[in-house]
Amino acid sequence: MAQETWRDEGRLARDFQVQAPEVQWISAVEIIYKSRDGNIMKANIKANQTELLMRNTTFVTFKASKVAVSPDLNYVLLTYDIKKVYQYSFLASYLIYNLHTREVHELNPPEVSDSVLQFASWGVWGQQLIYIFENNIYYKPDVKSSSLRLTSSGQEGLVFNGIPDWLYEEEVLHSPIAHWWSSSGSSLAFLTINDTLVPNMLLPRFTGAFYPWGIRYPYPKVGQVNPTVKLNVVTLNGSSPTVELLPPSSLEKSEYYISMVRWVNEERVTVRWLNRAQNTSILTLCYTHTGKCERKHVMTSDKWIDCQNEEPVFSKDGATFFITLPIKHGSQGSFRHLTMMSEQQSDGEVSVRHLTSGNWEVTEILAYDESLNAVYYISTEDGVSQRHLYRVRTVDLLHRECLTCSLFKTHCSYYDAMLSPDLQSVLLHCAGPGIPKTTVHQIANISSYMTVDSGLEFKDLLRQKNIPHREIRIISSNNHALRLELSFPVDFDENNQHPLLFILDSAPGGQQVSEQFHLDWDSVLVSSDNVIVARLDGRGSRFQGQKILQEVHKGLGVVDLQDQLAALEYLLKQSYIDGRRVGVFGKAYGGFLSSLLLLSHNSPFHCGVAMAPVSDWRLYASAFTERYFGFPAKEEHKYQISSLLSNISNSEKQKILILHGTADASVHFQHTAELVKLLSMHNVNYTLQIFPDEGHDISSTHYMLSSVISFFRGCFHENTAVTMETGEED
Amino acid sequence: MAQETWRDEGRLARDFQVQAPEVQWISAVEIIYKSRDGNIMKANIKANQTELLMRNTTFVTFKASKVAVSPDLNYVLLTYDIKKVYQYSFLASYLIYNLHTREVHELNPPEVSDSVLQFASWGVWGQQLIYIFENNIYYKPDVKSSSLRLTSSGQEGLVFNGIPDWLYEEEVLHSPIAHWWSSSGSSLAFLTINDTLVPNMLLPRFTGAFYPWGIRYPYPKVGQVNPTVKLNVVTLNGSSPTVELLPPSSLEKSEYYISMVRWVNEERVTVRWLNRAQNTSILTLCYTHTGKCERKHVMTSDKWIDCQNEEPVFSKDGATFFITLPIKHGSQGSFRHLTMMSEQQSDGEVSVRHLTSGNWEVTEILAYDESLNAVYYISTEDGVSQRHLYRVRTVDLLHRECLTCSLFKTHCSYYDAMLSPDLQSVLLHCAGPGIPKTTVHQIANISSYMTVDSGLEFKDLLRQKNIPHREIRIISSNNHALRLELSFPVDFDENNQHPLLFILDSAPGGQQVSEQFHLDWDSVLVSSDNVIVARLDGRGSRFQGQKILQEVHKGLGVVDLQDQLAALEYLLKQSYIDGRRVGVFGKAYGGFLSSLLLLSHNSPFHCGVAMAPVSDWRLYASAFTERYFGFPAKEEHKYQISSLLSNISNSEKQKILILHGTADASVHFQHTAELVKLLSMHNVNYTLQIFPDEGHDISSTHYMLSSVISFFRGCFHENTAVTMETGEED
Repeated sequence: MAQETWRDEGRLARDFQVQAPEVQWISAVEIIYKSRDGNIMKANIKANQTELLMRNTTFVTFKASKVAVSPDLNYVLLTYDIKKVYQYSFLASYLIYNLHTREVHELNPPEVSDSVLQFASWGVWGQQLIYIFENNIYYKPDVKSSSLRLTSSGQEGLVFNGIPDWLYEEEVLHSPIAHWWSSSGSSLAFLTINDTLVPNMLLPRFTGAFYPWGIRYPYPKVGQVNPTVKLNVVTLNGSSPTVELLPPSSLEKSEYYISMVRWVNEERVTVRWLNRAQNTSILTLCYTHTGKCERKHVMTSDKWIDCQNEEPVFSKDGATFFITLPIKHGSQGSFRHLTMMSEQQSDGEVSVRHLTSGNWEVTEILAYDESLNAVYYISTEDGVSQRHLYRVRTVDLLHRECLTCSLFKTHCSYYDAMLSPDLQSVLLHCAGPGIPKTTVHQIANISSYMTVDSGLEFKDLLRQKNIPHREIRIISSNNHALRLELSFPVDFDENNQHPLLFILDSAPGGQQVSEQFHLDWDSVLVSSDNVIVARLDGRGSRFQGQKILQEVHKGLGVVDLQDQLAALEYLLKQSYIDGRRVGVFGKAYGGFLSSLLLLSHNSPFHCGVAMAPVSDWRLYASAFTERYFGFPAKEEHKYQISSLLSNISNSEKQKILILHGTADASVHFQHTAELVKLLSMHNVNYTLQIFPDEGHDISSTHYMLSSVISFFRGCFHENTAVTMETGEED
Repeated sequence: MAQETWRDEGRLARDFQVQAPEVQWISAVEIIYKSRDGNIMKANIKANQTELLMRNTTFVTFKASKVAVSPDLNYVLLTYDIKKVYQYSFLASYLIYNLHTREVHELNPPEVSDSVLQFASWGVWGQQLIYIFENNIYYKPDVKSSSLRLTSSGQEGLVFNGIPDWLYEEEVLHSPIAHWWSSSGSSLAFLTINDTLVPNMLLPRFTGAFYPWGIRYPYPKVGQVNPTVKLNVVTLNGSSPTVELLPPSSLEKSEYYISMVRWVNEERVTVRWLNRAQNTSILTLCYTHTGKCERKHVMTSDKWIDCQNEEPVFSKDGATFFITLPIKHGSQGSFRHLTMMSEQQSDGEVSVRHLTSGNWEVTEILAYDESLNAVYYISTEDGVSQRHLYRVRTVDLLHRECLTCSLFKTHCSYYDAMLSPDLQSVLLHCAGPGIPKTTVHQIANISSYMTVDSGLEFKDLLRQKNIPHREIRIISSNNHALRLELSFPVDFDENNQHPLLFILDSAPGGQQVSEQFHLDWDSVLVSSDNVIVARLDGRGSRFQGQKILQEVHKGLGVVDLQDQLAALEYLLKQSYIDGRRVGVFGKAYGGFLSSLLLLSHNSPFHCGVAMAPVSDWRLYASAFTERYFGFPAKEEHKYQISSLLSNISNSEKQKILILHGTADASVHFQHTAELVKLLSMHNVNYTLQIFPDEGHDISSTHYMLSSVISFFRGCFHENTAVTMETGEED
């Protein structure tokens, strides 16, 4: 459950999802991408010419597989037999395919056959390959050469090299990767994460064997021992020994996280260190020969510091870099803005210059063009629901311009961007509000070079469907103006009364209301059952400034709850809402909230789903819970559903459906077990669906979703029936 | 899940249950008993005088405690902090209380304080005590003396002395005790059960800890390694070494169970040995000085041999003994009858004499009065639903008489009996059909001495309740005449249409239809919701001869299913049954059947409960499954629900409620996990309730029962609603 991953969470119906195509720059004018039909293509963007690298039929027998082309374009690395581990990581087997000779061979560690690897990928040039097996990193200079083992400390469930443990994957790095190539490909930085002292959680197994056993893995809950972490750098030609990059002296004797690593040039790496309390963050520049790290910027906060994965952009000489910093904007609190830090050659003093300001946020820094004195970034300046590509000059009057604001105007207002190596071109992924598409443009004037993915297929696919119509309203809760998205049926008639379904976000720190195209499971209820779906970005949500984001500090389950109730209150005043048919859905953190909403005294909700709900934050991961609640102390009463409910009662006959995978490695089934015990103690009826041996993301999506949909249908239908009966008596 | 324990299983609402009072003979004319209000009383039956031994207020702070009076009547052993382990066993702490001085002290092994013991009880004379701690047996000659450890091989989860492992407790001995006192109290026989090679099952824990772990315990599933067992005898004065009683030579090299141990006199023990296939049973007489066991009777069968816990009654010299044996009765097959085996002093030949015969069964052999040449026993001669005390002469014309048939005639037809040591008096517990009561009688003419428990309190308690009215019908299924009990509402009107609920037995080998008084959870549905409840004794049930009992051999889930459907067919022809509202409830084996009944194509059932259901017999215990299915072979298809259902479909919209404790040590939660996976694979909707960390018997009975009751109410009500709607259209 991570702020940065809100886009994945809560989007349950992957079928409907329009994902950006896999695409990458391989030169200033060339990209490689996988077309919608699965062919691997190379394109020259200026000539608008494409070339087929590998046909989609080549590995037709390996169904759920991934492919990656080697930097020298001679080989393909095929990932198959993929078995999900946690949110991002997976185990898989790998084949190397020669695009010219069509030869295939397996990628295996020395003296191992049919291996299952924890990771494998090409490096940055030629046929460089690294892979990770039994928590150790292996390197192959080219496809034909033998493997070099770069580490030997790896131990299953204890010491991890180059890949994260559960905590680092899901709550610190938000990535399955804990290693970073230098841009020349001559060095590799990697984390060594030591979980030796971290308590282990048991994930029991129930099916598939006479005596199913289960697995244990390190998972630090609140206040428990965290893993220790070291950052090492190794030169791949073996010329020098592995060097450890040392934490700043102030952190040496305390617990810390490493939340970001990025190469600045061949000798320097920038690293962000965060103390365990997550209220002091130190950005350093580290010298790979000595291992020494110099502080470049220190941040402290009385709450927590967010955006710890943000990669600063450095000038080539390392003397100037760009990060985002919260800048106060009158009474509205602080907003994250692009900031330039330059070290004066004369005295070593750092000059700080805010390049942007206002009641909007910079969401991503893309590149620094030193010749133009300009920085490329993404921001919400044109609207909090939007994302556009901007360029700002770093000199003189800080002239800034929006590069995408007038492009595809009616269809696109939410962009991702990837600049070409020479910063002359840009790949734009328009994620909404129209059907997503991916195009390549000249940066100078945004004139189009080519279209990688037109989205036309989806347009055809959706032509027959009644796509809900979305509107954004502003509601007020506790003097905060909050954004509420409503999805209406196409043939919405405000003279009719509609059931209402609230969909909660699955983690704080996300954004539900945006102009991204999305078509989720709830669209079925909107279009077939005339349900109105509401999504609120209340306190705790992101991109509206630090104040709204951080109001949930020590108040998770309190202020966010108030906002949902305020939104409901607003909606209940609308004539087209049927106050007798109101439901709520939430997963993980959202399941925590939906349980609270359903179980609280005089709940205005009639039915709700809590999926993989958190029922006690003390049982969740250290890095998350401590961020919101601090280190466990006296305020324990705020941790649990049970303590937040002064008066559980089922007299109102709320219907509750709980769904949980029994092998959920993120929100343990333990949470549902404790919740169910609480409910039965208070004689509260509930409906439960378990997914034996499934994880946080349930793979039997279809069955699960149809349960959820028919649960709400049942609830909304039943309450109509009651209404009618009552009506007859009049 | 055991044949012998059918009375406990399925009787869910303990609140309503009228249990026999705790009572025991301490001399020819004295008994000790616990009165309904909890006082410990001593009574002289001839004088009809009672004396208070210990007031119910003595240990009022130890709520859920048990008490036992020492043989010399000077002490009380108080059991408290009782924690259930499996079906019969529990962990507890113990106090010894001096009835005269009121001194109290703890019972602890040497050098252990605040101990939790696996077992403790008085011996047979004075203040003899034994207790079991960490799988070893300890002996105290009297309260003041120090403990002697009788065994040292005990190892937690591996080697058990004097107490059974899971398999022996639940499927072999059906008791928490695996040791037996000689009648003088000078020797003790005990089992040593070795589980070293038995696979362990994990019972995961979910609640009550940050990192709940779970426990593992030996549980042999079908075809897995069984525990090995040894029977030892130890003299308590330490005069001679522990002697092992050796199995008959034919079993020496094969796997066997010891299913019964009983002292005949101070030098001899009778033991029943059963091969693993359970089709050869050897009754032996063992000499405790040499350890040698002589075969006294061998039985073989092409199915399995039942009644393996039956204790034979021996004459004092050991030359004559009584057992029950199946005797053919024309075309109806065999019935268990009282049989006398006598060894001729002249030639050692054994003469076999059947003392009873007919199409009824002897259910218990009580005593042999050598002076009268008479045997006391319980049988079903006056009706298969009844139990009466009989006496048969062992000489001449085998004159037999019923001693209880004319006693309390209208109220009592189902007796338990306990004869006094001198066989001159008898304690009778009348278990139905009226409110149960316990009385003491002179054996000669059954004239009453005194009443121990009149049952009057329950009469008062029940006066206000609408106790269902029961009727027994005979239905035919596959040429078997089967007994069907129907419970009707008091104000039953056959012109109305009633919902119908089938309640299935929780294990084969039981008897659901009898004249025992019982008032179960389903009575609520009968009296408040006008439901008619049906209980069938189909094939696989006991006391109607071997044929009906053993028809399920290799046919569990097939012929028993046919019988339920035949009963349903009969009922659907009755005008007062509403065929649109038919439900079924079953636990364990009954959950297996109810799942089959609900999921089969065109199921006539509309809703049903499967509680702790078996979904695959290969996952259940060796001793049980092998008895019914044989050792795993080719016929595996008969083991699983999935394979018994050719065509799972939910098109009929049957409603299924599954209930299971996640720490069920008997039917593992694994069964429900596999079932739920099967259901979701076939898109079958179900409702699940889990009871975190609860066992096979769910302790939160009230919540569980109200779920079950409201589930059926919902189902029966909903289908009425549909009916009405349809009606309106007419």
